[in-house]
Amino acid sequence: MGNKAITPRDVDFAKWYTDVVRAAHLCDYSSVKGCMVIEPNGYAIWERMQKILDDEFKRLGHQNVSLPLFIPENLLKKEGELVNGFAPEVAWVTHGGSKELEERLAVRPTSETLFCDYYAGHVKSYKDLPKLFNQWCNVVRWEKETRPFLRSREFFWQEGHTIHATKEEAMEETDRMMKVYEWFHHDILAIPSITGRKTEKEKFAGAEYTLTNEALMYNGVSLQAGTSHYFGQKFAEAYNVKFTNNENKEEYVYQTSWGTTTRMIGGLIMVHSDDNGLVLPPRIAPRQVVIIPIGADKDERVMELAESYEKSLNEAGVIAYIDNTDKSPGFKFAEAEVNGIPVRIEVGARDLESNKITFARRDTSEKMVETLDNLDIVKYTKELLDTIQNDMYERAKERRDKLTFEAHNLKEMEDILNTQPGFIHADWCGDPECEAKVKEIRGCKSRCIIDEPLIDGKCVCCGKEAKHHVIWDIQY
Amino acid sequence: MGNKAITPRDVDFAKWYTDVVRAAHLCDYSSVKGCMVIEPNGYAIWERMQKILDDEFKRLGHQNVSLPLFIPENLLKKEGELVNGFAPEVAWVTHGGSKELEERLAVRPTSETLFCDYYAGHVKSYKDLPKLFNQWCNVVRWEKETRPFLRSREFFWQEGHTIHATKEEAMEETDRMMKVYEWFHHDILAIPSITGRKTEKEKFAGAEYTLTNEALMYNGVSLQAGTSHYFGQKFAEAYNVKFTNNENKEEYVYQTSWGTTTRMIGGLIMVHSDDNGLVLPPRIAPRQVVIIPIGADKDERVMELAESYEKSLNEAGVIAYIDNTDKSPGFKFAEAEVNGIPVRIEVGARDLESNKITFARRDTSEKMVETLDNLDIVKYTKELLDTIQNDMYERAKERRDKLTFEAHNLKEMEDILNTQPGFIHADWCGDPECEAKVKEIRGCKSRCIIDEPLIDGKCVCCGKEAKHHVIWDIQY
Repeated sequence: MGNKAITPRDVDFAKWYTDVVRAAHLCDYSSVKGCMVIEPNGYAIWERMQKILDDEFKRLGHQNVSLPLFIPENLLKKEGELVNGFAPEVAWVTHGGSKELEERLAVRPTSETLFCDYYAGHVKSYKDLPKLFNQWCNVVRWEKETRPFLRSREFFWQEGHTIHATKEEAMEETDRMMKVYEWFHHDILAIPSITGRKTEKEKFAGAEYTLTNEALMYNGVSLQAGTSHYFGQKFAEAYNVKFTNNENKEEYVYQTSWGTTTRMIGGLIMVHSDDNGLVLPPRIAPRQVVIIPIGADKDERVMELAESYEKSLNEAGVIAYIDNTDKSPGFKFAEAEVNGIPVRIEVGARDLESNKITFARRDTSEKMVETLDNLDIVKYTKELLDTIQNDMYERAKERRDKLTFEAHNLKEMEDILNTQPGFIHADWCGDPECEAKVKEIRGCKSRCIIDEPLIDGKCVCCGKEAKHHVIWDIQY
Repeated sequence: MGNKAITPRDVDFAKWYTDVVRAAHLCDYSSVKGCMVIEPNGYAIWERMQKILDDEFKRLGHQNVSLPLFIPENLLKKEGELVNGFAPEVAWVTHGGSKELEERLAVRPTSETLFCDYYAGHVKSYKDLPKLFNQWCNVVRWEKETRPFLRSREFFWQEGHTIHATKEEAMEETDRMMKVYEWFHHDILAIPSITGRKTEKEKFAGAEYTLTNEALMYNGVSLQAGTSHYFGQKFAEAYNVKFTNNENKEEYVYQTSWGTTTRMIGGLIMVHSDDNGLVLPPRIAPRQVVIIPIGADKDERVMELAESYEKSLNEAGVIAYIDNTDKSPGFKFAEAEVNGIPVRIEVGARDLESNKITFARRDTSEKMVETLDNLDIVKYTKELLDTIQNDMYERAKERRDKLTFEAHNLKEMEDILNTQPGFIHADWCGDPECEAKVKEIRGCKSRCIIDEPLIDGKCVCCGKEAKHHVIWDIQY
C-alpha cells in the first residue's frame, strides 16, 4: 500500500511531507534560493482559502486596499521594537536601474508602518473611525532555513490593519478576528486548533498583546496558524496618528492587526494527509468530486449519467468534474487519490447493467456501492461531503488529544519531548527566565497562555507559585 | 455645476484626472516615492476586473500559479534582448538582513525568465503540453515620472505564460488572448479599443511579434490597454526548454505571454468620467445600484420598500446597497455621484404618497419618475443598467471617431498633433528611421499596424511606397 513516490509518514515525517508536496504538485523549489513556485494544485487551495476568508472579512465590514511593497528605511525605523524584531530578516533594495538609491528600501516584512503612515494623513475626526482595512499580498523575510509553504523567503498572506476610537473597540476587534481564524481552522480546514495569548517574549514585536491560534501537526509539532495583535496607541504615537474624539479632544487612535498565511497549506497537509498523498477536507478542496466514466464506449448511458451528475452537482454548489482524459481508470483513480479529491464517483458500464454506481471516500478509502433507484445524487453527495468533513475534524481532534500531555516539572517535560512531542500543558510563574530554560529542551516554546484553571499551581520550571496555564511545544 | 473638488476636464485634463482619482478615493500617493496606495474604492474596481478576467482565463483552460518575486541577475541575463529592454528600470535587492548577497536579485519587472526556468524542469514530452499558466501579481519598474494608476514603480497585473508543441498552436493562443482583452475592453469596460500589431521598434523586448489593444482617452491621448506576445522558440533556446515531439524528436517549445494591468483603472477614468467625478460602466462597477431612503421616519413603507428592493436586486445578481447612514439625502446623492454608482434609486416618503419612486442615471444625470403599479424592479433595473452600459460604449465610440484623423504627410501629422491629438491613420514604408522622425513630433509613436487597406499608398514620412496602414498617437 501507499504511493511509491511517497516515503511512509511514520518512517520519516519530514521526507513524507516534501514527498506529498511534490507528488500532489503543490509547490516546487525554484532557482531563487528560499523562494517557492506554487503550482496549480497548490495555488488553487490558496485561492479557495482567500475566497472563504475574504467573504467573511467583507461580511464583517472590512475593505481591501493595497499598500506599497517597499518601506523607506527611516519610516520602518520609527517604531523601535518593530524594526528590532524584523531587522535581521529584511531584504533591502539599494539600486533602481543603474543608480544607487538615496535611501534604501525594505521589501515589506509586514506593513504596520505603511498603514500608520497612510492613516496619519487620512484620519481627522472620530467620524472617520473605525478604518477596517485588509490586504492580500506577498511579504519577504530573509529566512536562513526554508521549507515548502512552512517557511520561505517570500510568502503570501492577508494582513488586516484596523484603527478605532476607543481601546474597548480595538480590543473587541482583536478578539473578533481571532474568532474568525478559529472558525476557519475548525469548520473549514478541520483543524482543531487552540486559541490563547502569547507570552511577552513570544508576542509580535511592538504589540501590547498577541492572540494566537495554535495547531498540532500529526507528528506532534505545533504550527502557529493565525495571530491577532492589539497595539494600543504605541504605533499611533510613533507615527502620529491622531483624531479629534467626540469630546473635541485630540487623541491617538487604537490599533490592531491580524494575519494568516500560505503556511496553512503546509498545516493542512501535516494534519490530514497520508501515505497515499494529499487528503483535503471537502470545504477547502478546490475540486470536491471527481466523476470517472468507465467503459463509456460500451454503453452510452455512462457519459450521459456522468454529465448529468456533473451538471446537477455544480448547480447545487458542489465542485465536481469529469475526468474524461484518455488515461486508464486505474491511473485516474491514483491521480485523484494523490491529489486529495475528497469523493470519487465511478460510473461504469458493467455497474450500470445491475443499476449500480460506486462512491469512494479519499479520507478512509471506503467504497459504497449504491443502487440508482431513488438515488438523489445531490443530497447523497452533499451528505457524504459533510460526513467526511466532520470525520476528518474528529480524527484530527482524536490525534490532538492523544498527543496532549501534562508536565509538572522540567524532567517530565524533557521526557515527553524526547519521546513524543505534543501540546504539553504546564503551569508557569510568568518569569521569562523560566521560559528560556524550557526552551533549552529541544527549542520547546510557550505556544500560548490559555484561560483554564492552573494544573497544580506550581511553575513547571522553578516550582514557585504559578500564574498561568500554558501550552508548550516545539514548533515549525 | 460640477464637483468643487474637481478641476473641469476641459480646463486642465491632467489636473482633472488626479482630482477625480482623489475625490473618488481611488488611490493616493504614499511616502514611498513613485508607489501608490490603492484605496478601497480603487481596489474594489481591480477586484472586479480580476474576477471577470480570471473566470474567462479559467474557462479557456488556464491555471493560476505563483512564481517568485525575485530573479537572480544571471538568470535574467540569459535572454539578451529582454534584459537590455528592462535593465534601466530594474530595482535590485543587494542585502538580506545585514549580509550582502552573493548575487543580486532583480525585483521582477516581468516573469518570462522564471517561467522558462520552471518549464525547463517540468516538460519532457509533447504529452506535457500545452502548459497554460497565469499569475496575478505585483511587478516593479523603476520609472522616473509616475502618475496614479498609469505609471507607478509598483503595479499589479496578470501575466499569462503558455508553452505549446507547435508554432500554430502558440500563435493561435497569442491571438485568442488578444481577443479576450478586446472583449473585456469593449463589453465590460465600454472602451472601444482597436487591435493591431506593434512595429519592430515598439514590440516587447524578445518577442517575435506583439499584438496590442489600444484605447483612446477623452483628451485624444492613447493608452496601451493589453498586449499579447508570440515568442516563437527564442526564450526556449535561451533557457533550454525542450520536449520530445510526437515523432520522438527533441524540439524547443513555442511560447506566448500576455498581460493587462491596474493602469486600466486609469483608462476607465479617462474615457468615461466627467466633472462630477467617477463614471463607471455598470458591468465593472463594484456597486451598481445605491438605494437612498428619504423620510424613513415619516413612513415605514420607505425602509420596507428599500429593503425589499435591495434583496430582490441582489438575488438577481445586481450589486445593490442601501445607504442608511445618517447623512442628509443631498450628501448621499453627491457621494454616490462622485463615486460613480451607475444607478441611484430614491425611495421617498413624499413620492410614496403618490405611489412613485425615482431612478437616476449617473452617466447622463437623467431622472426617471416611475409609478409603483406593476413595476418589476429587477427587470426595470437590469434593463436600465444594460442601457447605460451600451450608451457609454456608444458615447466613447463617438468620441473616438471624432478624434480619429488621417494624415498624408508629416506636415499634416504635425498640424493634427498640435491642434488635437487622436488616432492618426497614416501609411508607413516600414523603415524605422521614418518611425523615429514621426516620434520627433511631440513623441508621437506608432500605436499599431492594422489590417486595413492602405490610405494612399505613400509613407507619411518619406513619401515612398508604403507597406503598412498604421495608427499613430502620443501616449500615456
